[in-house]
Amino acid sequence: MTEANAYSLLFEPVQIGPVTARNRFFQVPHCNGMGHVRPQGEAAMRGMKAAGGWSVVSTQETEIHPTSDLSPFAENRLWDDRDIPALRLMTDAVHDKGALAAIQLVHNGNHAQNLTSRAPVLAPSDMSLDHPFPKQARAMDKADIRELRRWHRNAAIRAREAGFDIVYVYAGHSMTVAQHFMLPHMNHRSDEYGGSLENRVRLTRELLEDTREAVGDTCGVAFRFAVDEMLGSDGMQAAEEGRAIVEMLAELPDLWDVNVCEWANDSATTRFQPQDGYQNDYISFVKSLTSKPVVGVGRLTSPDMMLSMVTKGIVDFIGAARPSIADPFLPRKIEEGRIDEIRECIGCNICVMADSVGAPIRCTQNPTMGEEWRRGWHPEQIAPKERETEALVVGGGPAGLECAMQLARRGYEVTLAEAADVLGGRVLRESRLPGLGAWARVKDYRLNDLTQRANVNIYANSRLDAEQVLELGIPNAFIATGARWRADGVGRNTLRKPPTISGAVNVLTPDDIMDGTLPPDGPVVVYDDDHAYIAGVIAEKLALAGHDVVFVTPESTVSSFAALTLEQRRIQARLIELGVEIRCNQVLRSLDGQAMQIACSYSDRLQSIACTSAVLVTERTRETALFEALQGKGLTTLELIGDASGPALIADAVFAGHKAARDFERPAEAVEQDWFRREITDLKNEVL
Amino acid sequence: MTEANAYSLLFEPVQIGPVTARNRFFQVPHCNGMGHVRPQGEAAMRGMKAAGGWSVVSTQETEIHPTSDLSPFAENRLWDDRDIPALRLMTDAVHDKGALAAIQLVHNGNHAQNLTSRAPVLAPSDMSLDHPFPKQARAMDKADIRELRRWHRNAAIRAREAGFDIVYVYAGHSMTVAQHFMLPHMNHRSDEYGGSLENRVRLTRELLEDTREAVGDTCGVAFRFAVDEMLGSDGMQAAEEGRAIVEMLAELPDLWDVNVCEWANDSATTRFQPQDGYQNDYISFVKSLTSKPVVGVGRLTSPDMMLSMVTKGIVDFIGAARPSIADPFLPRKIEEGRIDEIRECIGCNICVMADSVGAPIRCTQNPTMGEEWRRGWHPEQIAPKERETEALVVGGGPAGLECAMQLARRGYEVTLAEAADVLGGRVLRESRLPGLGAWARVKDYRLNDLTQRANVNIYANSRLDAEQVLELGIPNAFIATGARWRADGVGRNTLRKPPTISGAVNVLTPDDIMDGTLPPDGPVVVYDDDHAYIAGVIAEKLALAGHDVVFVTPESTVSSFAALTLEQRRIQARLIELGVEIRCNQVLRSLDGQAMQIACSYSDRLQSIACTSAVLVTERTRETALFEALQGKGLTTLELIGDASGPALIADAVFAGHKAARDFERPAEAVEQDWFRREITDLKNEVL
Repeated sequence: MTEANAYSLLFEPVQIGPVTARNRFFQVPHCNGMGHVRPQGEAAMRGMKAAGGWSVVSTQETEIHPTSDLSPFAENRLWDDRDIPALRLMTDAVHDKGALAAIQLVHNGNHAQNLTSRAPVLAPSDMSLDHPFPKQARAMDKADIRELRRWHRNAAIRAREAGFDIVYVYAGHSMTVAQHFMLPHMNHRSDEYGGSLENRVRLTRELLEDTREAVGDTCGVAFRFAVDEMLGSDGMQAAEEGRAIVEMLAELPDLWDVNVCEWANDSATTRFQPQDGYQNDYISFVKSLTSKPVVGVGRLTSPDMMLSMVTKGIVDFIGAARPSIADPFLPRKIEEGRIDEIRECIGCNICVMADSVGAPIRCTQNPTMGEEWRRGWHPEQIAPKERETEALVVGGGPAGLECAMQLARRGYEVTLAEAADVLGGRVLRESRLPGLGAWARVKDYRLNDLTQRANVNIYANSRLDAEQVLELGIPNAFIATGARWRADGVGRNTLRKPPTISGAVNVLTPDDIMDGTLPPDGPVVVYDDDHAYIAGVIAEKLALAGHDVVFVTPESTVSSFAALTLEQRRIQARLIELGVEIRCNQVLRSLDGQAMQIACSYSDRLQSIACTSAVLVTERTRETALFEALQGKGLTTLELIGDASGPALIADAVFAGHKAARDFERPAEAVEQDWFRREITDLKNEVL
Repeated sequence: MTEANAYSLLFEPVQIGPVTARNRFFQVPHCNGMGHVRPQGEAAMRGMKAAGGWSVVSTQETEIHPTSDLSPFAENRLWDDRDIPALRLMTDAVHDKGALAAIQLVHNGNHAQNLTSRAPVLAPSDMSLDHPFPKQARAMDKADIRELRRWHRNAAIRAREAGFDIVYVYAGHSMTVAQHFMLPHMNHRSDEYGGSLENRVRLTRELLEDTREAVGDTCGVAFRFAVDEMLGSDGMQAAEEGRAIVEMLAELPDLWDVNVCEWANDSATTRFQPQDGYQNDYISFVKSLTSKPVVGVGRLTSPDMMLSMVTKGIVDFIGAARPSIADPFLPRKIEEGRIDEIRECIGCNICVMADSVGAPIRCTQNPTMGEEWRRGWHPEQIAPKERETEALVVGGGPAGLECAMQLARRGYEVTLAEAADVLGGRVLRESRLPGLGAWARVKDYRLNDLTQRANVNIYANSRLDAEQVLELGIPNAFIATGARWRADGVGRNTLRKPPTISGAVNVLTPDDIMDGTLPPDGPVVVYDDDHAYIAGVIAEKLALAGHDVVFVTPESTVSSFAALTLEQRRIQARLIELGVEIRCNQVLRSLDGQAMQIACSYSDRLQSIACTSAVLVTERTRETALFEALQGKGLTTLELIGDASGPALIADAVFAGHKAARDFERPAEAVEQDWFRREITDLKNEVL
């Protein structure tokens, strides 16, 4: 890097207590669905961030005791010495690439269900769990608080032994007992840990002091703190107690990691929070109250915004969770002036989804995420071709674009043919729907890359039939022809009783809507048996266009899958706000020119909804005609990928395109064996 | 055992192909939330069944390939040779106690989400997953079917290598691809695997033949088959295709394991299916069509019913999942004529709940279930006392009864004092509510034991204050005083805005209802912020009593927790059927003599419900007054247990009582260390 780099300010070293970060890029703690369950996966994934230039790479939250047992979710764990070796894999991987390793210790209070440990649940006061689960938390007595401090202190000492450079105290995301003590609605204590703000902060102060005393001579002590609950006066506000707490603890930690809570606010999706840097207004006060460095987040991918945040004195470190997932090499790219090579986070929260179902992390933009150990994938490197040959990719959607790009990176001659006049496929089409504009980044990143390569020919407006494909004389074909939404209402809930559609009814599918066809005036029913985002977005679009919209779903909530991307509550709230009438637990039975007939999924009772149009969002039909016509026609490679092979999320399509390119010309046995790589349980483990 | 035993028929050996079961007690495959994630726990738990006299002990379903990846749920796994050692732990444990080990191989088709493997989802035809998850299954082509057969065959061979005596082919619970091929609504194929019944059964026939060919010389080949979907003519019926399939495959397997599907029908709770042996009418035809032994289930705990089922020729083997969980020693007890010592399953499905949240199995009746390896607990054995001393247990609910019984078994002098005139506490009180009668078995089993012991004194009608306790002069006190339902509407969703209650409103709690107080005539609102079974049961009771009932909940479904016990759909359907008006997504704001005001949990919009009475089901307050008054009063042991320590499920109270008795007089360090015992991931595992 030269001084001429406009972003050199971002590459200054910054001290965090006794340790020094090599630059200002800081991967804040974030979940990845691997943790103590998949420690080799965890280590390889964090190590990749370090290789990509992040100066600090953090764990996810790390349970300190069986009373904070988040299983089956795969967080990190440091209950006792037996957990040290797994974490040392991670610190070794991070140190190996020159970064500092940070660990976020946590006691989750009543956020932990302790499902496996069956331990008591602890909280400042007696209360329910924060899940709808019939188990209540017990108010911690003084002995419990002493024990908690002991557990935390021991975990800090073990963390140092595991090689960590920075140890966090964590009071954020509404998920930690330190924060629970701070919040008046959760802390009804009358002792020195309740009542006044000073009392409610006492536990956090003690944890910070304990941690400093235990490891502060060699480790930086970080404090992650949610300054605002984003509930107005119903919760903690940055301008009120949030500020007061920063004042009280200003010089106690070596680093302030500040954000907003709850998680859905901190990790807002682009659909509901399109602006990057959206936390700046909440956190900017912090630096004025402390001499210690501050890290903040807000889906930061623009180096100009990063620079301005440091220049303006909002933060010292550019914090990132999602941007570091979408592009682990973001710092290196900025350092090397390769700004247009940044793979920007689209803010879809598929990363969060994976963790929320207990699966390893994945990313729509970065198909190598979570596959660093299992498949040995590197986000920036791919094996070069071993011989000269050509490949044809049919379809310029997410699978086709990724496949073509990676084949091109391997050095093959690549021809990419797309039927439509513009490339992008479903990501382009969906990006035109309300709130989904950032989906286009999936296409933008890949097209930017592809159009700069001499070994790539791209043809739009080129729908190919089998004859035309064969005429091209390219021996290897990847068919990424996508899928189309069904118009017959058949889906998960109607397999046994396919709906009857008759009469002069206007039936539309998401494809029609994305093609620009809108229903005529009159009431519209949007029927959702898909449960991801599309039906909810279409209802929103139609309501915004002035239609009377009824949203019908067999599920009990609107866009139920979106609970996993932290959006469900916002989606349903928005539809209510827009006047959309919502009918849950209803299955489509029939549709004619006057009405939709639906049946209650519990009682089978029928009702009618008067409507002249219906948008049916149920399943997709794979477009396999070209693939089938090419079978047995002598092509060396003929592979069906993406939605054409199995309709799923955009992230799955990108993954499929990537995998096809990686696996091209690999031995079939090696490709098959990849599926089996996994981490398994030690059969010899015993208590200490 | 002598010939005089009335149940000697149940202890005849039965041949299963090349192997012989020592008696007719057969633990059919069932999930236990341990599996490949916790293989030592799995082995110890299955080994305990073998010790208890079951002649065959089965695994849970065992995934055969990454395309049937059920993670994060902890089923068994046999993807490749690396999974053999974990399963061998189980077969060794089972053989060690003289039983046969059976393995249930499975490919889950579109029931598998493949969340971790990211492999394609397979099905007979293109279709959605059977979860509301945006991913579709691909119709299997001929190559896929050949591959599936190869995977299954290899798994069978590995199963034999792992030591199994019986290998299952599995077509049941709507969860397996073999069954999916059979069902017309899932199989739209036009090749030899679709269309006619013979074609739809072809895959199953091939799997059976393959398995016999692979391991049939040394292993029994079992076939688990759901004969009826319990959907009338909308699904497979025992009298139609169910029967035809048994006819077609009659002599192919060595054993028929027959049941009904879906899982909620097979494992019906007592609330919705109070009769044991409830599957007999569906499965009784099977034996007439095959010469091979038949095993059937239906929550069988009565030896007389078992005997009659064998005598009448309904089954050869008494199958059990839940009865073997509640009492692993059920066969031994029958064999030894200790019928009244049987710990009967109460049919609450808390075992299913644990598996459904990815946690190790637990049982309301048997607190040792799932703790065989972790805590070394045995359901029938407990360490005898090491010295003479006395113990007082205050409170005769589930925690107190279990604690007293186990202390008595250890040989201590035990005094049990209960404030009410009858013992049982919450299990007795709740058992009087509609459908919960079987809850009383928790009390019956323990009282039957306690009242036969000379070292136990039981006092009903004996509410003790601290002075009275101290006067007794018993140095060790276990306080199991339970909890009472709050009447102020405060709960999970009202912590920030506690409701206002004013005017001449009739506010009742579940305690009032169980005490026999019913609301006066007029509309009643049942407000549920607990989400387990109580509020739904109370709404049912009030509706049955003729009240106009409105059910209000902040959740999106009625009794949302009951989804985990396979009851949610039935509960909501029943309330609808009874005319209860259901308002979901609503939070209590205020209550006066005329109405309840509620706010939409999405939009905060307010609405009023006219009512003269309200039953508030939110949280429970721990009864700790006696415990607090006894602190510092010189007792050697003073321990708060059960709901008084942390209100939770009955299963948790029984567990707490059991644990307290086990831990009594153990060193504190050993007691603490138990919490940490767990299975962890091998750091060295690699692909083969």
